[in-house]
Amino acid sequence: MHPVVDLIREKLGDTAVLTGDDVTARPVSRIIKSGCAAMAIIRPRSTEEVALVMRLCHDAGVAVVPRGGMTGLVGGTLVGPHEIALSLERMTGIEEVDTLTQTMTVQAGVPLQAIQDAAAAHDLLFPLDLGARGSATIGGNIATNAGGNKVLRYGMVRDMVLGLEAVLPDGEIVSSMFKILKNNTGVDLKQLFIGTEGTLGIVTRAVLRLQPAPRSRQTMLGAFRDFAAVTRMLAHMRAASGGNLSSYEVMWRDYYMLLTAPGRHAPPLDQNHPFYALVECEGADPAGDDAAFQAHLEAAMERGWLADAVIARSEAERLQLWRIRDDVHYLTTLSPLFVFDVSLPVSAMDAYVKDLRAALQRRWADPTLISYGHLGDGNLHLALSCGTAADKEAVEQLVYTPLQALRGSVSAEHGIGVDKKKYLGVTRTPAEIRLMRALKAAIDPAGRLNPGKIV
Amino acid sequence: MHPVVDLIREKLGDTAVLTGDDVTARPVSRIIKSGCAAMAIIRPRSTEEVALVMRLCHDAGVAVVPRGGMTGLVGGTLVGPHEIALSLERMTGIEEVDTLTQTMTVQAGVPLQAIQDAAAAHDLLFPLDLGARGSATIGGNIATNAGGNKVLRYGMVRDMVLGLEAVLPDGEIVSSMFKILKNNTGVDLKQLFIGTEGTLGIVTRAVLRLQPAPRSRQTMLGAFRDFAAVTRMLAHMRAASGGNLSSYEVMWRDYYMLLTAPGRHAPPLDQNHPFYALVECEGADPAGDDAAFQAHLEAAMERGWLADAVIARSEAERLQLWRIRDDVHYLTTLSPLFVFDVSLPVSAMDAYVKDLRAALQRRWADPTLISYGHLGDGNLHLALSCGTAADKEAVEQLVYTPLQALRGSVSAEHGIGVDKKKYLGVTRTPAEIRLMRALKAAIDPAGRLNPGKIV
Repeated sequence: MHPVVDLIREKLGDTAVLTGDDVTARPVSRIIKSGCAAMAIIRPRSTEEVALVMRLCHDAGVAVVPRGGMTGLVGGTLVGPHEIALSLERMTGIEEVDTLTQTMTVQAGVPLQAIQDAAAAHDLLFPLDLGARGSATIGGNIATNAGGNKVLRYGMVRDMVLGLEAVLPDGEIVSSMFKILKNNTGVDLKQLFIGTEGTLGIVTRAVLRLQPAPRSRQTMLGAFRDFAAVTRMLAHMRAASGGNLSSYEVMWRDYYMLLTAPGRHAPPLDQNHPFYALVECEGADPAGDDAAFQAHLEAAMERGWLADAVIARSEAERLQLWRIRDDVHYLTTLSPLFVFDVSLPVSAMDAYVKDLRAALQRRWADPTLISYGHLGDGNLHLALSCGTAADKEAVEQLVYTPLQALRGSVSAEHGIGVDKKKYLGVTRTPAEIRLMRALKAAIDPAGRLNPGKIV
Repeated sequence: MHPVVDLIREKLGDTAVLTGDDVTARPVSRIIKSGCAAMAIIRPRSTEEVALVMRLCHDAGVAVVPRGGMTGLVGGTLVGPHEIALSLERMTGIEEVDTLTQTMTVQAGVPLQAIQDAAAAHDLLFPLDLGARGSATIGGNIATNAGGNKVLRYGMVRDMVLGLEAVLPDGEIVSSMFKILKNNTGVDLKQLFIGTEGTLGIVTRAVLRLQPAPRSRQTMLGAFRDFAAVTRMLAHMRAASGGNLSSYEVMWRDYYMLLTAPGRHAPPLDQNHPFYALVECEGADPAGDDAAFQAHLEAAMERGWLADAVIARSEAERLQLWRIRDDVHYLTTLSPLFVFDVSLPVSAMDAYVKDLRAALQRRWADPTLISYGHLGDGNLHLALSCGTAADKEAVEQLVYTPLQALRGSVSAEHGIGVDKKKYLGVTRTPAEIRLMRALKAAIDPAGRLNPGKIV
């Protein structure tokens, strides 16, 4: 045990420091169930305590790996036996909900769902939503620039953060806790910490931007005869629904078939269409919005863009339609299973999937390729099954390599962590990676903060 | 003349290099009419030529100051006799309008209005709009993170840029020309160049995010009995109009009186209200939106939030209402005139203006304080007249100092440049300024790019 741990215990108290069995009793993440390998887990209660820990570790030459709700998917919080894990789990204060500026000030350890609930209690909306909402913390959401199902309308976390406070590797506190929308006074420093997975600073507090709570919601599942119809419908809904379109989630037929197989969900539409989309609007006029939504669908049917559709007539029906999109656990019936989260221009998406399928078929007998995703954002999720678990890298090559020419991304939402490091060069040019390294070297010259992640 | 100018002429050709009278014939900016002091003005035609110029100047130890449409207001393009001005005026190509991904790819020298027009030609909208649209270039808009009248709905330029290309001080090209919305692969590098006024890199190309063109527009001028009613009405319109509310521009009575004085604009509403607001929605349903807008106003009147209102019944009436907000040139009838562009939480705005007025009155006889601005964004414009031109700094102190405790901004939209450098510390903490300096030192260690600006 490094003496810095005792030093921290002395300053922060016994309850702030976990060692030995208390560390190994915790799993690596919510996916990897083996015990955490960290030298110690430190649990500060305030920004000042985070700063103190960083300063002590910096002086002691010990690396620190920050952690939130441990729901990440790319190994961004992986920690070794000579490193300290810093958990924000005791920084769970919602400091203020300001209904006038429509902002919420929070500590980084607050779970996403608690933030959603606090906003809703004031008839406001925090529009970030994702499956891990009960466990994921806002600090982790910020550090990974989380996306989710309503990016089309509300943006990613980057668009929801007005102010931010972070602790640098040397323990300096950089506090930019603004409630204002406009602030052209030099570098927008919070951008350094959003989406950089705790490699440049530890997010400790934030001012979140809230939205008016929607007063109506319209949801439909549509079927399409080809991909061109899918994209025409997207443009149509964007234009026709003004600012109300919040989700445009597309499922290729393979995905729809998997989720509506016997014993799973009853298929609300025939299974013989090549594409399906779950489309949702959030509006402010319960009476008028329903009629307008129906009119948009009828117009799309008349023009031949929409082959068939079912509209949710109740909240129960709405949730049932969403389950067909969200019950991704049925993918685990595939073995081996390789999953991906890529991004590419919508204009290239159809050909990309077709080419990938052909490439898989050339290499393996009877491969499975299941595609779905946030089409409105250019974000495609892929689940592949072919060969054996040993074919992982070969599959990754086939999925990622074509993205380079398309200026696509090897990670739309999940981040790079350690898992995707070797594919960073598919999306980022050598000049971009050099610049990222220069920033890391400027802010963390000794490599003390979350080392080995991203670059 | 430094020999690097001849070297650049040799590589880029005669037409790329202006010297002597061709330089001094150009004004410092659109406001300062004296001649440009630069050693030379270089006019590259491509990113590669910009990179070449930067490389040559870097090696020669000559500083470079980039320039766009020269409509900036804070001296961000000020250039000295030993520096080279680099103009993007020959990089005016609109490379692509992609209607499927709803993006436009442009060179940095394209004027804003040309971009607006190109989007409109495809029934799309580039939502940035500001008075200097005919002269200001998109590169300048990006380098200053321009705001304008529709930030409430569409955000600032930062929210409209998907991809960016910039040249670093040493001539390295960093190209992040993505068309995708989601790309969590490390630092979002474009944020380094947006709003940093050409101090970290020269923006050469961009991928802009377009929006569906609105199909309806509702505009009203309202009067309010107090500031609480102004903010209640804002919350009401935000919630009631869904995503449609695009402008909420507030005028204190002094501003309204100035603009509707005899011989100027006829007052559409009585001049005896303490506050007025120009409110505009952009929607997708021409028939339904008008009725809904009217209903929202009636509800606000019933609840006593809105004291009086006039709705524009034609495009001519709409433009006439906007003139009362936009004809700021009437401010120049004041002398001396001190103008400000500050930002602060809406919750603190009323007291801030009252306290400022009291402070002015304590110091000068009969001061004039005219307040107006983008209330929905927390952005206040102030025009003050008191004392003499020599009182400028004393006035600045009174305006800026209270912003520190309110976590407000000394520059909402205009930037820092050289003019506001000494007040940067009002908005930014010492730790923030240190971090900005560390970034500048990491990217431009020799201080070759737009030296002396911001920090």
